[in-house]
Formats: sequence, structure tokens, C-alpha cells
Amino acid sequence: MYYIGIDIGGTNLKAGLVSENGQIKATKKSPLRFENMEQMGEVLANMAVTLAEENGVSRDQVMSVGMGFPGPVDNKNGVVIKTVNIPIRSMPVAEMFHKYWDIPVYLGNDADCAALGEYYHYEDKSIESLLLVTLGTGIGTGIILNGKIHTGINGCAGEGGHIVIVHGGEECSCGRRGCWERYASANALIRQTLAAMDADKDSAMWGLVGGDLSRVDGRTAFEAKRKGDAAAKKVIEQYLCYLADGLANYVNIFQPAVIALGGGVSHERDEDLLLPLQDMVLEMCFGREADRHTRIVKAKLGNDAGIIGAALLGM
Amino acid sequence: MYYIGIDIGGTNLKAGLVSENGQIKATKKSPLRFENMEQMGEVLANMAVTLAEENGVSRDQVMSVGMGFPGPVDNKNGVVIKTVNIPIRSMPVAEMFHKYWDIPVYLGNDADCAALGEYYHYEDKSIESLLLVTLGTGIGTGIILNGKIHTGINGCAGEGGHIVIVHGGEECSCGRRGCWERYASANALIRQTLAAMDADKDSAMWGLVGGDLSRVDGRTAFEAKRKGDAAAKKVIEQYLCYLADGLANYVNIFQPAVIALGGGVSHERDEDLLLPLQDMVLEMCFGREADRHTRIVKAKLGNDAGIIGAALLGM
Repeated sequence: MYYIGIDIGGTNLKAGLVSENGQIKATKKSPLRFENMEQMGEVLANMAVTLAEENGVSRDQVMSVGMGFPGPVDNKNGVVIKTVNIPIRSMPVAEMFHKYWDIPVYLGNDADCAALGEYYHYEDKSIESLLLVTLGTGIGTGIILNGKIHTGINGCAGEGGHIVIVHGGEECSCGRRGCWERYASANALIRQTLAAMDADKDSAMWGLVGGDLSRVDGRTAFEAKRKGDAAAKKVIEQYLCYLADGLANYVNIFQPAVIALGGGVSHERDEDLLLPLQDMVLEMCFGREADRHTRIVKAKLGNDAGIIGAALLGM
Repeated sequence: MYYIGIDIGGTNLKAGLVSENGQIKATKKSPLRFENMEQMGEVLANMAVTLAEENGVSRDQVMSVGMGFPGPVDNKNGVVIKTVNIPIRSMPVAEMFHKYWDIPVYLGNDADCAALGEYYHYEDKSIESLLLVTLGTGIGTGIILNGKIHTGINGCAGEGGHIVIVHGGEECSCGRRGCWERYASANALIRQTLAAMDADKDSAMWGLVGGDLSRVDGRTAFEAKRKGDAAAKKVIEQYLCYLADGLANYVNIFQPAVIALGGGVSHERDEDLLLPLQDMVLEMCFGREADRHTRIVKAKLGNDAGIIGAALLGM
């Protein structure tokens, strides 16, 4: 038996045929293109059917189709409430899908699906809670409590990038000021790196990008720090401080078994990111004297987490 | 049948005989006095037995005894991990209690118990989640999700006063800087009021306390604002801003059905506190377009919430 997971992004659809033990057997990717949004059901159903057929799996070997959308969903009623980057508003996706394939359909938020994927594949199967924090353009979070996605009363929970950690701070796209993602996302790190370079024309960071600011990315300051650059060291120390503040907030609220860090920044060497973060967060949190602490680890699944998690919605 | 709830505070023990429908039939209060901590089991058991006997309830009419402690507990093993203001560390309270009365014993954190009490007595019985925020010396929070207290992996979850909202801000007793309770507790409001009075000797707040700074409390600025005092108006506006920031953080993370505000400050008139807060928080949160929003309300039970919630641990 198989489960299909589809990860709906702003530019691409990615689908995966997932086995009962959560492993991807095959994937399929296509650009997200519609003449109008009415075609959504047809496009998604075609993708799922084709994925199965191309891999020699008959329709009745597929138990369900799960889909992760970049926004809040109402899974109970099969409705996608709203998405970013795609003009979806209150769309009955399950019903639209069923016109082409009558199979159980489950909807989730993409960050939640990724968290579910990480949870399922976590080495210790006895854990009851996991928070996935993805450091990218913004900060995405998904919360698993007692083995289930925490969606809140309206599907909008888990917007963890939008907790204010700097009262009255930088403007955020969400309308608030000082949100965590303005200070601790990969994009924030890039902005902080650029500002430090602007303030120090002698920094080794300039050499690393050949004087070309457009080549600055989330790795630049980490690399320069390893080469002993003082300006880069300051950038990283401050960045970790912002990152730790948000993570410690989550520990004080949830005390989850695990916080998994995902996104490009999370691939930095352990001695530069994970180890100092673990120390900083523990120092900041309640429960230091308890016998169990939140483990902060690197996420394992990378880009496949969303597909696997979407498929798992049906398990 | 009855359930006994005991609220263990830094100075007093308060116990209540609670009926099956969560109503208090009788209460008993005594100062917290020990020659040594070994007596804890005896003192608590005596209190429970006496409360029952004095009210004509036999021991076998009592189903369980629940206790709320000011700190994290390990209910599964009947151990209180640590408390503030009382020198308890890893104390096997359930075992100590059972030497005097062999009855099911449940342990909880006091803020969690209060949240459970509020949840049980909330008018809409269909809600699945509630966050109780108590504005006092600090900010206490208790989180009910799917009808159950969220304790985290080590009993230390729900330390919601200790989320940083002002990165690098005022020092907090917990060791961090910029915790929410440093800005939005009743004590924080008093500090903010004193600072505003110090900066403006003409403020009407001086008259309200007869020039005596020791009479300043959480009501002073609210009262002066109602009299049209500009300095007081500024204090309240800023205070609500801090309060709203933390509440909106919680909504973006949890989207709970209800946030109940407790503590002295919560008794201010709706037009001065609850109504502006509701507007400010909604404006700051995700899910504005969803069909359901977190309701922000006043807590109902006051000081009895802890006793009722402790009793409910056994239901």
C-alpha cells in the first residue's frame, strides 16, 4: 500500500509516492501553472494519478493523498483558507480533487507537514513532541504534540516566526514589529552580514564574495568567522543570540522533546551552530535541573520532509 | 462523591472540598509552617482529612486529592521537582502523603491547575484549548490543549512569563533579559507608573496616592487615565502594548480557543483593558481572515481557580 504526498509551493508542485514505513519510492515535480484556479483539482489529481501509474502502482494500491499548502487549511472540511504567493482563498480543494479521483484527501500546512515528516523519522520513536524550525526566507515552524500536528482552532497555529522578540523592532511583512524571523531567518543573517560588511571594508567577508555583494549568502559570515575575521565573528555571535532567544521562548512554553532545525543555515558545522546554540538555550531555560531537556538537533529530511509529511497525514 | 484540591503557596495552604460538577462545597486555609520538610506529607494529609471530617464527608466519599505546587512536578512519579519560595527539591510528595492517607494523589503546577479550573468552568464546554495568563508579581501561564494540561517532557512547560519580548532588555529573575513579565506583569505596571510619576511631578497620579509612593499599585495609572491625566494615559498605552505583544505571540503559536486574563490587573474596566487589548491583539495576529479567532476574556474563578483545578486533576 502507498500514500501520496504533494507539496504545493509558490513555483513548483512536488509529489511523492510514500511507502507504509514513510519512505519515498518515487517523486515527481512540475511547475505550478494554471490558466485559472478552478483547474487546481484537476492538476493535483493528474499529478497524483500519473505518479502512481508511472511507477506501476494501481489506483487502488493508494490509500490516500495528502497535500501541504503554504498557508492555513481547514482539513476537516477539505478547504484551503489562504496561501502566500498563490491566489488561493477559501478553496474547497478536497471536493475539487474528488471530481477526478475519489480517494481520501488530507490537507495540511506545509511547515506542519514537514514537522510531521521529521517527527516520524526521528531516531527515538518514543518522543511525544517535536518542533521543526526552518530557517529560510522567513522562519517556518511546525509543532507536533502528542504525535499530532497542533493546528489551533482555525488552522493558523504554528506561525512561530512571528513571535515578537524585539518590542518595537524592525518592521515585518506580517504587520508587526520585531518578529523573530526579522532577526533569525537566513535572510536576516544575510542582511546582518551586509550591514557588517558595509561598516567594515577590511573584513575578510569582502574577499570571500570577490567584492560582489550579490554573492553574499547565509554561509558568508560563518566562513569568514572560521578564517578568524572579527567582523564576521560578531555577526555570528549576534545572530546566534537572536536565534537562541526565540528557541528558548519555545522551550519555556512547550518543553518539547526535540527542536529540529532545518533550512540552509542548519547545515553549518556543529561547532559553529548547533553546539553553541544548545549551550545558550539550556542556559536561558526553565527546567535546567530536570532530568529531561529539550534536545536541539539538525533536521534530517531536508526538502523531502514536506512530501513525506503530507503523505503521513493519511496514515 | 468529592474531590479535594489543595493549593500550596509560599505562605498559605488552601484546601477545598469540590463536588463532581467542579463546585467548591467548603474551603480551609492554614499558614504553611513546618519544622522540617519531612512533615509535608503529614501536614497535607491532616489538612485533607480535617477538611472532609469538618464537613461531614467520610474518607471513602473522597475520590482523590490533587495538589498544586508553585513549580514543576512529575505527576507520574508523584514527585515535586522544585518550588519557588518553599525549599522543596525532588520531594516524593505522593509517597509521603500515602503514609497518612492511602488515596489517589495527583500533583500539578499551580498555574496549570488554575488554567484547568478556568477551562472546566468556561461557559462554552466545546472549547478544546485555553491559555490562562495571570498578571501578578510575575506572569503565570497555564496551557490546556485538547482538554489536558500541557506540561512538556519534564513538567516545566508553560513558563509563559519568561518569553523574551525585548531582546537584551531588563534583567529578569530567571537569568534572561527582556522577559515578558518584566514588562507586562502587575509589578511591571507599578514600576512603569513610578517612573512616569518621577518624570512628571504634575501628574494627577501624585494626588491619587496622596504623594505617598508606597501607595502606588496596579490601579493607580488606570484611575488617573480615567481622570484625563496625560502621563497616566501614556503609561497605560505602553503597558497594553507590551501585554498585547506577548498575547499575540501566544495566538500566533497556539491559536487557542480562549485566552483568559487573571490577576488584579484583569479587574480593570473592559473599556480600559479588555476591549483595547482584543483589538490590538487581533490586529497583530495571523488568522484574522479565519472564521474563528482566539477570544480574550477575563478569568472567572479568581483565587479559587487553583483549588478547583487541583481537585479536577483527579477527575
